Amino acid sequence: MLELHGNHLIGHQTSAESDQTFQSANPSTGESLPTVFREATDAEIDRALTLAANAFVAFRQTSVEDRARFLEVCADEVEALGTQLIESTMAETGHPEGRCVGERGRATGQSRMFAQFLREGSWVDARIDLPQPDRQPLPKPDVRSLMFPVGPVVVFGASNFPLAISVFGADTVSAFAAGCPVVVKAHPAHPATCELLARAILTAAEKCGMPEGVFSMVHGRTNAVGLALVRHPETVAAAFTGSLRGGRALLDAANSRPNPIPFYAEMGSVNPIFVLPGALKERSQDLATGFIQSLTLGVGQFCTNPGLVFGLESEEMGSFVNGTAEAAKNAAPATMLHAGIHHAFVEGVGTMQGMSGLTLVGQSNTPADPAKSQAACHVFETDASGLRSNPELYEEIFGPVSTVVKCASPADLEEFASQLEGSLTATIHGTEEDLAEYRGLINILEKRVGRLIFNGYPTGIEVCHGMHHGGPYPASAHSYFTSIGTRCIYRFVRPLCFQGWPQSQLPEDLRDENPRGILRMVDGTYTRDPITR
Amino acid sequence: MLELHGNHLIGHQTSAESDQTFQSANPSTGESLPTVFREATDAEIDRALTLAANAFVAFRQTSVEDRARFLEVCADEVEALGTQLIESTMAETGHPEGRCVGERGRATGQSRMFAQFLREGSWVDARIDLPQPDRQPLPKPDVRSLMFPVGPVVVFGASNFPLAISVFGADTVSAFAAGCPVVVKAHPAHPATCELLARAILTAAEKCGMPEGVFSMVHGRTNAVGLALVRHPETVAAAFTGSLRGGRALLDAANSRPNPIPFYAEMGSVNPIFVLPGALKERSQDLATGFIQSLTLGVGQFCTNPGLVFGLESEEMGSFVNGTAEAAKNAAPATMLHAGIHHAFVEGVGTMQGMSGLTLVGQSNTPADPAKSQAACHVFETDASGLRSNPELYEEIFGPVSTVVKCASPADLEEFASQLEGSLTATIHGTEEDLAEYRGLINILEKRVGRLIFNGYPTGIEVCHGMHHGGPYPASAHSYFTSIGTRCIYRFVRPLCFQGWPQSQLPEDLRDENPRGILRMVDGTYTRDPITR
Repeated sequence: MLELHGNHLIGHQTSAESDQTFQSANPSTGESLPTVFREATDAEIDRALTLAANAFVAFRQTSVEDRARFLEVCADEVEALGTQLIESTMAETGHPEGRCVGERGRATGQSRMFAQFLREGSWVDARIDLPQPDRQPLPKPDVRSLMFPVGPVVVFGASNFPLAISVFGADTVSAFAAGCPVVVKAHPAHPATCELLARAILTAAEKCGMPEGVFSMVHGRTNAVGLALVRHPETVAAAFTGSLRGGRALLDAANSRPNPIPFYAEMGSVNPIFVLPGALKERSQDLATGFIQSLTLGVGQFCTNPGLVFGLESEEMGSFVNGTAEAAKNAAPATMLHAGIHHAFVEGVGTMQGMSGLTLVGQSNTPADPAKSQAACHVFETDASGLRSNPELYEEIFGPVSTVVKCASPADLEEFASQLEGSLTATIHGTEEDLAEYRGLINILEKRVGRLIFNGYPTGIEVCHGMHHGGPYPASAHSYFTSIGTRCIYRFVRPLCFQGWPQSQLPEDLRDENPRGILRMVDGTYTRDPITR
Repeated sequence: MLELHGNHLIGHQTSAESDQTFQSANPSTGESLPTVFREATDAEIDRALTLAANAFVAFRQTSVEDRARFLEVCADEVEALGTQLIESTMAETGHPEGRCVGERGRATGQSRMFAQFLREGSWVDARIDLPQPDRQPLPKPDVRSLMFPVGPVVVFGASNFPLAISVFGADTVSAFAAGCPVVVKAHPAHPATCELLARAILTAAEKCGMPEGVFSMVHGRTNAVGLALVRHPETVAAAFTGSLRGGRALLDAANSRPNPIPFYAEMGSVNPIFVLPGALKERSQDLATGFIQSLTLGVGQFCTNPGLVFGLESEEMGSFVNGTAEAAKNAAPATMLHAGIHHAFVEGVGTMQGMSGLTLVGQSNTPADPAKSQAACHVFETDASGLRSNPELYEEIFGPVSTVVKCASPADLEEFASQLEGSLTATIHGTEEDLAEYRGLINILEKRVGRLIFNGYPTGIEVCHGMHHGGPYPASAHSYFTSIGTRCIYRFVRPLCFQGWPQSQLPEDLRDENPRGILRMVDGTYTRDPITR
């Protein structure tokens, strides 16, 4: 058992300069948890980033194997926290044990996946254009480039994934994999869990001989801490998962620096589902059950939670709605992440109840207990004109609430798809024939989302190479980049080009002999062969 | 011979709504050129972008071969403009004929290079993770993704490359290659040349059966036109090459939209050269001559023009400075791109002449003729304290002026390297032993530049796969992306992920059979093989 101290972890030191303190609370009881945490001061933030900047040279020059090993030892150390980590997570988030254990597996699996990804090595996109000294009218130089780490990265953890998208989440491990030191801002709703994870990472860094400053973590509940991290001159990139409001404020701060830096924010979305006629004919009841399961998974607290469902008015659509109402009844209310999120959810549902043209068609039979920050499942129904007159419905409400829109025609579906803001996902339920017939709808969705799901559900994202977790704004601040899956490493690198550089001084992946045998583009052709001249 | 009309080219129509007109001028005479151009109105900008948005579906669904062919026919049509294009370019920019012909070759070569790049096809980064329906505790879905075009792109041409970085430059052809319609803002300093190029592209689009709106071009000399293009709701990305001031204003506009969009600006840089002791010992005179050639190439009007040269105080450094002074004398003054750039250059050199600690050590023997907007070569010298007291020297002055800084110690070199803002390039002259000995300096430069050149010069960029033309801000607005070389296509795509999607409806590059035989990552392994199950 580690004894928690609540201090910032800045390189090898702990620090606690500020008098401004806070504690986390158990959302299912409302009780404060014992450890006292402090706001980071500007001086503490400066020390963390200065150490990170100093660590950058040594860290980026570690061997690939050493960095891969570091990722694996981090995973080992997180596992070594044992039940203390699980209990802390449960206490601070209201997540049940199974969820916590599963999420820990995702986090450690993700770190080990990046270790393998580094060892394979081709991700660096090495490109070599060989020289032609005799070319006319001008000689062609020797030009080589590969992806190179950007420098110190600031990571903002998410409240809803305290293990897989937080201190030891995809942001941190992909930045480490790239060769970037990391300064994490601990999430104020689960700071104790953050401390445990941070101490595991620091233990791993020490065991692996990583330079001091490769990892630091500061606490803070105020906007000031986040803004200072983003504005610090040594910060070269930041990653964030959270609300649109918080994300946009930090994005604006990053953009208005004297030298703007990329702020990779994943800010959630409405994740529409389209139930097409073929699917409704075949399985309207299964669809209803599946939809409610997806909607209530994790108490609806997923970035990919489905907030809108569209279908064409029909008898089958009616029975789908009845089915969702039935399934919603059986969905037990459950504790949300913290009182603030619970409050926003209750307020959001209240607003919807006041909207004209919107009918509450289904909700959990058991009432939610506000003292336990519980949310009940709510399903509303409206029609095309109801949606047109309530455009707020296109905005995400975090939690288990969704609106089913009965449309009069395929043209309605296309109209509403066109009105969607950028979304992480869109889901189609249908037959293969539906998909071909509704090609116009798909054409619209392709422009608006990052992931298209067929006959599945958007929640429960697979961590793999092909995954894309991002999309046009506001799903992501920059739609090229993902925050989940191996492509997320590209947020923390940039191409560095070497022209006429001698072999002995080139990064090894650009040397003629290709010592690691990675895939490279040589004069436009992909090959793992060494260059022989 | 095409007769110029000076109107905006909006899809298949020309338009000329505004009464606000302007003309370009021949910088070598100051005389206005005959064609009258107009500011684009908001309505014209809206029509161009609406057409582009409408064209997006059909354009992105063209076959790879059709899009490659379109790029080649564009190149053919640009060549078919013949001497009219060369004469127009010469008249509007003051560039000599040889430069114009060479730059046209670069532009058409670049378009044909992208055609081949499309045909090879692996650039789409197709990734497939195969399903495992029986996996415990949860089945693994079928997840596939590839790079997908983002939508209508706005392109701002550069004044200094009217053929290779303008209407038909790398931005436009890479956007076309990606499958994005393009709206160009013609450069007001060479609008006639822009009209010729735009009409060639429109002819090619017609010959290739491309949808109306795949390309439009509007004119404008005021900031309002640029801002309206960047703020238009249908614009999803923009590319810009130009000044820091202009670029930052448009970047801020892009970032402050309700939905921010990426604004890919390349805003130039100071491009330091470091002459290390071994190189000075071997060839100080050659270095001096090579440096002045690079400095005066294209009248110093390159983004990669070397604005600062660093070396250690020594006898050889003294003879290098003397050599540059000698070479500068023989550099003939030449006409700059336009009166505005000439004015800024004269003002910048004037400011330097007033700086204490700075000595003018070399300049063109022949005086520059201001009536011809001519710039003379100027080389200043200073020492470490001179640079410390004049930090403005870190800012780019566009034109053939540079400062040689004699440093007292390697620590000075590292100090100044640390002070550099992001730069497109840094150049080292030295022996291989120098490079190993000055590893600390290289470590600093790696963090600050996009391209490191050894024993060469930064000007005269090679258009190839490995090239990177970008760097930390202000070299680029986003250092991940390049504006030259095949990687520049990644500015105009984003990953699109298909989960559980039926084979018949997948993009062909994601289908099991891999019809084009591109390189794909299947379950983490790169292969060109089809998937057989």
